[in-house]
Amino acid sequence: MKNVLLIGCNGQMGKVVQEAIVAHPDVQLVAGFDRLATTDNLFPVYQDFNEITESIDVVIDFSHHSMTNNTLEYCVAKKLPVVIATTGLSPEIMTAMTAASKEIPVFYSANMSLGVNALIQALHKIAPILEDDFQIEIIEKHHRFKKDAPSGTALLLADSINEVLAQPKEYIYGRSGNENENAMSEIGIHAVRGGSIPGEHTVLFAGEDEIIELKHTALSRTIFANGAIKAALFLEKQAAGLFSMNELLNEN
Amino acid sequence: MKNVLLIGCNGQMGKVVQEAIVAHPDVQLVAGFDRLATTDNLFPVYQDFNEITESIDVVIDFSHHSMTNNTLEYCVAKKLPVVIATTGLSPEIMTAMTAASKEIPVFYSANMSLGVNALIQALHKIAPILEDDFQIEIIEKHHRFKKDAPSGTALLLADSINEVLAQPKEYIYGRSGNENENAMSEIGIHAVRGGSIPGEHTVLFAGEDEIIELKHTALSRTIFANGAIKAALFLEKQAAGLFSMNELLNEN
Amino acid sequence: MKNVLLIGCNGQMGKVVQEAIVAHPDVQLVAGFDRLATTDNLFPVYQDFNEITESIDVVIDFSHHSMTNNTLEYCVAKKLPVVIATTGLSPEIMTAMTAASKEIPVFYSANMSLGVNALIQALHKIAPILEDDFQIEIIEKHHRFKKDAPSGTALLLADSINEVLAQPKEYIYGRSGNENENAMSEIGIHAVRGGSIPGEHTVLFAGEDEIIELKHTALSRTIFANGAIKAALFLEKQAAGLFSMNELLNEN
Amino acid sequence: MKNVLLIGCNGQMGKVVQEAIVAHPDVQLVAGFDRLATTDNLFPVYQDFNEITESIDVVIDFSHHSMTNNTLEYCVAKKLPVVIATTGLSPEIMTAMTAASKEIPVFYSANMSLGVNALIQALHKIAPILEDDFQIEIIEKHHRFKKDAPSGTALLLADSINEVLAQPKEYIYGRSGNENENAMSEIGIHAVRGGSIPGEHTVLFAGEDEIIELKHTALSRTIFANGAIKAALFLEKQAAGLFSMNELLNEN
Repeated sequence: MKNVLLIGCNGQMGKVVQEAIVAHPDVQLVAGFDRLATTDNLFPVYQDFNEITESIDVVIDFSHHSMTNNTLEYCVAKKLPVVIATTGLSPEIMTAMTAASKEIPVFYSANMSLGVNALIQALHKIAPILEDDFQIEIIEKHHRFKKDAPSGTALLLADSINEVLAQPKEYIYGRSGNENENAMSEIGIHAVRGGSIPGEHTVLFAGEDEIIELKHTALSRTIFANGAIKAALFLEKQAAGLFSMNELLNEN
Repeated sequence: MKNVLLIGCNGQMGKVVQEAIVAHPDVQLVAGFDRLATTDNLFPVYQDFNEITESIDVVIDFSHHSMTNNTLEYCVAKKLPVVIATTGLSPEIMTAMTAASKEIPVFYSANMSLGVNALIQALHKIAPILEDDFQIEIIEKHHRFKKDAPSGTALLLADSINEVLAQPKEYIYGRSGNENENAMSEIGIHAVRGGSIPGEHTVLFAGEDEIIELKHTALSRTIFANGAIKAALFLEKQAAGLFSMNELLNEN
Repeated sequence: MKNVLLIGCNGQMGKVVQEAIVAHPDVQLVAGFDRLATTDNLFPVYQDFNEITESIDVVIDFSHHSMTNNTLEYCVAKKLPVVIATTGLSPEIMTAMTAASKEIPVFYSANMSLGVNALIQALHKIAPILEDDFQIEIIEKHHRFKKDAPSGTALLLADSINEVLAQPKEYIYGRSGNENENAMSEIGIHAVRGGSIPGEHTVLFAGEDEIIELKHTALSRTIFANGAIKAALFLEKQAAGLFSMNELLNEN
Repeated sequence: MKNVLLIGCNGQMGKVVQEAIVAHPDVQLVAGFDRLATTDNLFPVYQDFNEITESIDVVIDFSHHSMTNNTLEYCVAKKLPVVIATTGLSPEIMTAMTAASKEIPVFYSANMSLGVNALIQALHKIAPILEDDFQIEIIEKHHRFKKDAPSGTALLLADSINEVLAQPKEYIYGRSGNENENAMSEIGIHAVRGGSIPGEHTVLFAGEDEIIELKHTALSRTIFANGAIKAALFLEKQAAGLFSMNELLNEN
């Protein structure tokens, strides 16, 4: 049983991670960190790292990227492995993360779900094979209140494809009017919004009389929490270094 | 066995209709009309209506909307039922069509496939039921060389929905950036392009924790030809009037 | 604000209904009924109808069909409208339900989701239109632990189709071997099982070169709870009688 | 321009290959072999290998497995590379094929489409990653007259998955009744039949709150013909040996 410190424990995702840790047999939540403690927290919630007295095995950070540097400093000082699950990291923070990884095990992924990362591995395998004969499009669906479009994961998938293409493509975000052929030079990324859809991403390869689709459906945000817990347990066994879902998945 | 005159017989769709007529037990192609006769036509192809001598039971027009007035004049003069399967008709032509239908049976549909029209009837049934609790989006997929976006059929579906909503919605054709909530006031229409996809249309109703999708897939253009033949056989039994797939489908 | 008595309040679905009532502005949960009271119930839970003292406006029963007769007797005695959301009702219970509906408003549906019932209305519209030219298949997906196959909802959809066909079809539950043509006389019903899928049902109409699919996806069990609450609020306005989702949906 | 001899040229697939060769800039059909010559063949069709006088660069066999030994003997005698695209090969023929490949380049694949083989490579990549946490199901759809179920390609996909699993799974072909949990030990393979669907295969990995789907859609049989032509052009550059789509795809 590993002791977890959860940073951002009372945010939207933080609450999901709380539940996932409670449901998991191999980890327990011994402390949280958040701007706000709520009365229903069943564990101490800190606003100051210096006050933490619990014995911690691993840190998971699902807070905001403005917090990441503080998290990294604390973990380096305490020699604690850390899973960074925040998004929107600046180049400066990426550099700080790499520096920290010389001294402690650091895990970072732009998407914490096992499935999305498996999909990326499949894309890396087949995109170069299909490049000459197929056009590529991405369709993503999310709940009606999601403000950003396309989703970070749709861009992650597109970037992952471009990494392995001989001729990387540009992105377009919709089509209307009379000049809309799919030039081989573009990936159309379509952001569908409605209802409470947690997240669905389809990568379409369309060729002459055949179509290949790779699709990921998230039924709840729990998958991101579970991915972070898997990462935490994976990290526990590693020496200092920067790790991603790639290493975790290929360990299996 | 009914004798068909096919206008626009050597165009892209005209050739598909030729094959469909040959394969159909109840119709035969006795004459064609086109700017160009090709050497492999197994029936006479005219450039002048006055020269047609064959006995005609029904006319199918799959040519260009610039031809529709001529077709209507000929059919009225000869008292022939006519299926108008061209798209992009101007208000003037629509008026001419209505006038002609006082004297002869005229069939017109913006989409000749049975399936798309059945879908429209389903939409008419459920869109008002779902209006308050579901957002609506349309995703259409076509071959990479299709220039117009969204497809005429996608707009037909959207218009068909709007006809029965208490609060008709605006159309948007893609989303990007940071202000992309699906307001209840819009239908997002997404035009996916790639490969040789003949045509796929999905209407998505997304609500709180449930999604309804109505999808039509065309596997070839033959369905439009077969719909036109069905319309021709249906028309044969009618008196003068303007008919659509609605009447044909509800006859069954 | 209407006062609800929830029968079967601590069962799997009962707990979901509890949450849905708490989240709904127009209803409140004033009493529950269950074999077991749990310590975390924030409302009184009874094992004996005689002990209920709260003022009740409407009853929702999500318990077991062995309980339905007791529920009906209580509601008739107290002149309370009742939503019966249990499945697997015997012909005897159906008869008792009809009898009770002479004296009180009774709502019964084999599936409480708005979306599934909208789908049924769409099927009623298009199945007769497509009957001659399309084969019909149903694919349903559920979580890996679901024991019954096909799902009750898949059978409900198939039965709903058969109701409106000129030639009702038989059901088959999979195909293997060498004699597997889809005779026009059958509907193949395919039960896919895996993961935690809450429930997905697709009705496929496959014709010559065109396919129509009507699909319902449940993202959580909350939709059944919300449907029951809608039914309760609908019932409040009715005189004695037997009601179904049909009446509720067409009221809109 | 390479000269092709097409064996089984007047069969159902043979006719499709004829058209594909005519449409392809790098190959020409100089001779056919079939039990039946038809009057509309624009090239000589033989019933006896000894009578072939045309200069041949590569042989494509889309006939019947009862013919394969004759084809191999002819190709070995003439030192011609050969693409074997027939299915249902017995172990004896497989052995003969391997023997022939010591002397000439032989290409064999149970499915000639580029896309299906790309899908297999993706499955090889992700199935081991997902094995512990996801259940696997396959859904295939074909035209109503297809007699065998499941399709050969569905079994090919299932076998391809099993090859890379630590714990290979059994196949079941439908579910009905009351004991239908998806045991981790099985792959459900569901054969949907209807209309004129050329072929659709979906591999579903369903986990806790996430689903991954890999889907291949064939819009016509041309893809198998084009795959065979690709194989023929690939083979032209090889020394003696036995080749599959694996080598062709990874050459790119």
